[in-house]
Amino acid sequence: MSIRKIALLTGGGDCPGLNPAIKSATKKALLHGIEVLGIRDGWKGIVEGTQEYLMPLHADVVRHIDRQGGTILGTSRTNPFKLDKGPEKILANLKKHQIDALIAIGGEDTLGVAHKLFSEHKVPVVGIPKTIDRDLGGTDYTLGFESALEIITDSVDILRSTAESHARIFVVEIMGRHAGHLALRGGISAGASITLIPEVPFDLQKVCDLLAARKARGIRYSIVCVAEGALPKQGGEILASGEKDAFGHVRLGGIAEWLAQEISARTKLECRSVNLSHLQRGGKPVAFDRRLGFYLGIAAVEAVLNKQFGMMASLTNGKIVLKSLSEAVGALRLVNVKEAYDQVYYQAKRSILGVQEV
Amino acid sequence: MSIRKIALLTGGGDCPGLNPAIKSATKKALLHGIEVLGIRDGWKGIVEGTQEYLMPLHADVVRHIDRQGGTILGTSRTNPFKLDKGPEKILANLKKHQIDALIAIGGEDTLGVAHKLFSEHKVPVVGIPKTIDRDLGGTDYTLGFESALEIITDSVDILRSTAESHARIFVVEIMGRHAGHLALRGGISAGASITLIPEVPFDLQKVCDLLAARKARGIRYSIVCVAEGALPKQGGEILASGEKDAFGHVRLGGIAEWLAQEISARTKLECRSVNLSHLQRGGKPVAFDRRLGFYLGIAAVEAVLNKQFGMMASLTNGKIVLKSLSEAVGALRLVNVKEAYDQVYYQAKRSILGVQEV
Amino acid sequence: MSIRKIALLTGGGDCPGLNPAIKSATKKALLHGIEVLGIRDGWKGIVEGTQEYLMPLHADVVRHIDRQGGTILGTSRTNPFKLDKGPEKILANLKKHQIDALIAIGGEDTLGVAHKLFSEHKVPVVGIPKTIDRDLGGTDYTLGFESALEIITDSVDILRSTAESHARIFVVEIMGRHAGHLALRGGISAGASITLIPEVPFDLQKVCDLLAARKARGIRYSIVCVAEGALPKQGGEILASGEKDAFGHVRLGGIAEWLAQEISARTKLECRSVNLSHLQRGGKPVAFDRRLGFYLGIAAVEAVLNKQFGMMASLTNGKIVLKSLSEAVGALRLVNVKEAYDQVYYQAKRSILGVQEV
Amino acid sequence: MSIRKIALLTGGGDCPGLNPAIKSATKKALLHGIEVLGIRDGWKGIVEGTQEYLMPLHADVVRHIDRQGGTILGTSRTNPFKLDKGPEKILANLKKHQIDALIAIGGEDTLGVAHKLFSEHKVPVVGIPKTIDRDLGGTDYTLGFESALEIITDSVDILRSTAESHARIFVVEIMGRHAGHLALRGGISAGASITLIPEVPFDLQKVCDLLAARKARGIRYSIVCVAEGALPKQGGEILASGEKDAFGHVRLGGIAEWLAQEISARTKLECRSVNLSHLQRGGKPVAFDRRLGFYLGIAAVEAVLNKQFGMMASLTNGKIVLKSLSEAVGALRLVNVKEAYDQVYYQAKRSILGVQEV
Repeated sequence: MSIRKIALLTGGGDCPGLNPAIKSATKKALLHGIEVLGIRDGWKGIVEGTQEYLMPLHADVVRHIDRQGGTILGTSRTNPFKLDKGPEKILANLKKHQIDALIAIGGEDTLGVAHKLFSEHKVPVVGIPKTIDRDLGGTDYTLGFESALEIITDSVDILRSTAESHARIFVVEIMGRHAGHLALRGGISAGASITLIPEVPFDLQKVCDLLAARKARGIRYSIVCVAEGALPKQGGEILASGEKDAFGHVRLGGIAEWLAQEISARTKLECRSVNLSHLQRGGKPVAFDRRLGFYLGIAAVEAVLNKQFGMMASLTNGKIVLKSLSEAVGALRLVNVKEAYDQVYYQAKRSILGVQEV
Repeated sequence: MSIRKIALLTGGGDCPGLNPAIKSATKKALLHGIEVLGIRDGWKGIVEGTQEYLMPLHADVVRHIDRQGGTILGTSRTNPFKLDKGPEKILANLKKHQIDALIAIGGEDTLGVAHKLFSEHKVPVVGIPKTIDRDLGGTDYTLGFESALEIITDSVDILRSTAESHARIFVVEIMGRHAGHLALRGGISAGASITLIPEVPFDLQKVCDLLAARKARGIRYSIVCVAEGALPKQGGEILASGEKDAFGHVRLGGIAEWLAQEISARTKLECRSVNLSHLQRGGKPVAFDRRLGFYLGIAAVEAVLNKQFGMMASLTNGKIVLKSLSEAVGALRLVNVKEAYDQVYYQAKRSILGVQEV
Repeated sequence: MSIRKIALLTGGGDCPGLNPAIKSATKKALLHGIEVLGIRDGWKGIVEGTQEYLMPLHADVVRHIDRQGGTILGTSRTNPFKLDKGPEKILANLKKHQIDALIAIGGEDTLGVAHKLFSEHKVPVVGIPKTIDRDLGGTDYTLGFESALEIITDSVDILRSTAESHARIFVVEIMGRHAGHLALRGGISAGASITLIPEVPFDLQKVCDLLAARKARGIRYSIVCVAEGALPKQGGEILASGEKDAFGHVRLGGIAEWLAQEISARTKLECRSVNLSHLQRGGKPVAFDRRLGFYLGIAAVEAVLNKQFGMMASLTNGKIVLKSLSEAVGALRLVNVKEAYDQVYYQAKRSILGVQEV
Repeated sequence: MSIRKIALLTGGGDCPGLNPAIKSATKKALLHGIEVLGIRDGWKGIVEGTQEYLMPLHADVVRHIDRQGGTILGTSRTNPFKLDKGPEKILANLKKHQIDALIAIGGEDTLGVAHKLFSEHKVPVVGIPKTIDRDLGGTDYTLGFESALEIITDSVDILRSTAESHARIFVVEIMGRHAGHLALRGGISAGASITLIPEVPFDLQKVCDLLAARKARGIRYSIVCVAEGALPKQGGEILASGEKDAFGHVRLGGIAEWLAQEISARTKLECRSVNLSHLQRGGKPVAFDRRLGFYLGIAAVEAVLNKQFGMMASLTNGKIVLKSLSEAVGALRLVNVKEAYDQVYYQAKRSILGVQEV
């Protein structure tokens, strides 16, 4: 049976790079005479399967989208396996709309669903990895990561003028609840003095000591990059919002706000926090994400043409290859702290506190 | 007595545009054979008067600074009138360092001090207005305002990709405790659906109703710009952090975070908040602030040459003119709500809730 | 007779700010129950008057356009007075499509046509000024100007890293055949050492002497901003492409390329040219152009509502007012060289060669 | 003998990423107690060897440089092998200043010199690859490439507003005399319709036919990316400036200008050219170049510590490794056209003319 119609969907948090992948997959499929159907709002759209969730993708529809962030298909966090007969509805809708194969663009949750649909229900699906967290297995890159790094780097550049004018410390909160890839590389790109990641619980007093030592050496300001999921060694367990922390302070907002308060209290230095929040995942894709979106979109359609289902287009060792979805979603990919220390941190003894403790 | 040496200082919160003003004032003074001394860290520097607070400004020092945000002189919020013998120390240090005139670049606090030093102590001072809040009297423009608007506009552009992909409402918090100029023009520039400013207490239910109505008309997302000092008509008085608000919810963080919670609770629509925070006041100056910095710096030195002390360089009705410092700091300049409504708001009936209520 | 339907068109070179004006005029008119018809491709569209040139403007059509550069209506340089029965065709089409009033957004040519249509044919027209050249009468601002300045400033910032690394002079060509507003303010914003404008023929040898003197003082590089229409005092008349100039060199490309060759030859310093060309007029509008587009669009519709035809929405002395189209197009507005010298040029003796000669 | 002092130099054209490499190499060396000496202006500086060409690099000197484009060390195109006793002078100066090892950051010319100094004169040298052309052997990445791609992509985004408003074709000239990497990936990132590279002589008539066909299909505008060294199959040999080409036209400026003239003449479509010129190699480094600069700088110092001279830090298959300088400079790395076609071009049949002909 040859492929005559495919469907595309995007799931989970949006990011720059989705639209380039949608464009290239669409154009590649059209080149091979394959019809392309966009599914709106992630897995929800194909569970529902009604007309409002279907968006035929022609060349004209995708022509301009590679310059836009987000996803023209919309997205949701719907997990069909948590819905009554979710997988069955998907199967029925694939059949109803004569969809021969499905390309799912997403992170751990979305591709986890894709993997289960393939392995448990024989759905002919191919994945494309995206997440600014870069915490998927089976690939060295996930769409959106480089664009997020660029915004982080630009934002820290912006904060430096105030940090320097006021001789202040800035603590910048970066996305990443479990994995520190974005904070780690954001910290390197932005030239942070200290980077704190979830993989390495940090010693609050050492952070403060380092900042005080920098000040004593005549350095006017410091930048601390902290992943939202980073925790101090002591008291980390009670950092819930509104509660008192191990130091007897009411915890407000995120880790950066808490950390800035602690640093101010302990060092008597002026310290402020900024949470980059949703700014990190929006905006237009940088050139790197446009290209990677193109490459991965093409590779996914080639996998469909070759009926290599259950696979994911991947960047591995600098090459575009296919990896199994099971490898992608098997385990959350965390920062390899030892490797990071060995390869990257020239100033590890002083600057990267978490990593220093390894 | 001719002017042989002047001093420059910057006070209060930093912003883009200070360095262009420092550069142009320095070069203009040097052109007239006048020596220029930079004072570090605002009023604190001239109260102290020691060598570490003095920075001679030559052509080489200022050559590259106009492209940088913040202030190479550093800044502080020190008010000499709250220090023991602050004004007397300033007078002594002006004499000691043979400073014939002082140019103070700042907002309400800094220029308020300048005004008192002039009127009560005969200090020969000229002011240059800066504040991203644009809430000074006596001028239509304050340095930093346009650069802040550009960052706000860019940030909202960035947030739109996520807002559209996820069909979300975003509430964006913008600086402005008392005056809504930045939120108002930020909201216009960024194309916000609703803008809330301190000058007009808002009706929370109407905000929610408008957002729900937009959704019902098929508009996928909405942007709400809210000044940090905007308050709801009801319950505004108890919006202190950590306390319960009029609706029985614990207030966390700023107005945007609170508002997003309320909107979500009342409309059942997905709503998130982002506080642009310090990002608004950093970064390099836009072309407008570079030019205005140049013009105002030159005008301030011309005022010094003409011994027009107690005055401030100002943009009024499109022209660079001098205004008295007393006019600048007499009263906080708030948004003229009636004028704003009449001139600006084409969609007032639906969109600008605060203003709508006038 | 009340206004029930208006038409909008954009003519001449595109620029950022047109779409915000289209959006605000459309929304303001819709608020008053007026139907809005977009005319494609400038005057050509209304001369033709066929369906392909008509684009009904609803709220949904204009919702997102304020973030985009250029014009969704398209544009052309068609002059109906140079076509056979052009004005008559316009009158017929206005009648045919029941258009009660016309808003024309454009520069000297487009508004010149608007003025003639009004004065000679009683066409009920209101203008909105746009041109990155800012050479219209009757207004202190024309849409697109500030966005162009921002790109010029950013571009020079970019060129500085190469200029400094290689110790080179860069000559940057800026738009402006007759008026030097863009080069002048671009040069100020970008911190150029020398700015050359059409209004002041420059002395090539003095340009070279100044650049050599800067080098001798230890300044590693210099930036020269030159308007495309600037000419040297000597030999300017034979600067046609491909011909030999007064110095016996074949003239290739624009003034910047020629100037860079001459500077290299005379000073033996490394000198390169860059023509910013079309980059200056593209891209998204800066916050300033978005706001001004909004204000001018609203003012134009208010003029229509008040039947103040033959007028143009204008920014004059910091206020949005109406001016007659005859004032706008009466004479090309050139740089007031004396005023520029008096108000702006703190370093005139050394840096702004053209102006220096006044 | 242990390493006690190293020297760093940058040669050839500047680009973003040099300063991050200088910073990380300096900090890594200082961490190991090694003294670092910057050599100004490339090979020229070490041939001269006088104090004005020496710049001691301390932590304070390099702290802020990673955010700046270009190179704080300055650069030149001096080739010591073309100077009288150039290599001997270098040897003498290394000895005189007690430099134990040299890190040279550069492209083909600079690293070619490094290779010869190592192989013929036993100079202990390690290389770091940089060039926006990405035409070196032995590495998958050269510093500056991604920053240049970002500027190209942004610039084409900017040009699109004018292209669409005026229904024009834009021909964009991109650096690359011999290798088409930058134009190829720039064209992909920017979404060009046609990309022309030196490796594949193009058929001018087919370019015109494709553009005409796009117009006929209702596509309002097209973007053509052309490397400066791309040539038409016919008449390419006589494209010298000022001469007549195979079509009898006087050749002015670069390939883009010529191509735009030809396209206009043959298709009667409006077509303009823009040469991105020096804008491509300036400006601040993107996050990717900051990180790669850091990684490569560290790897080069580690090579020095391990006395692996004659080597170059390289990104190969996604890993930072060492490669021999001989591999780097052995042969210019051109685009592998077959591979490019197979992997990348989903729309090859229609769009990538050069490649199409393979």
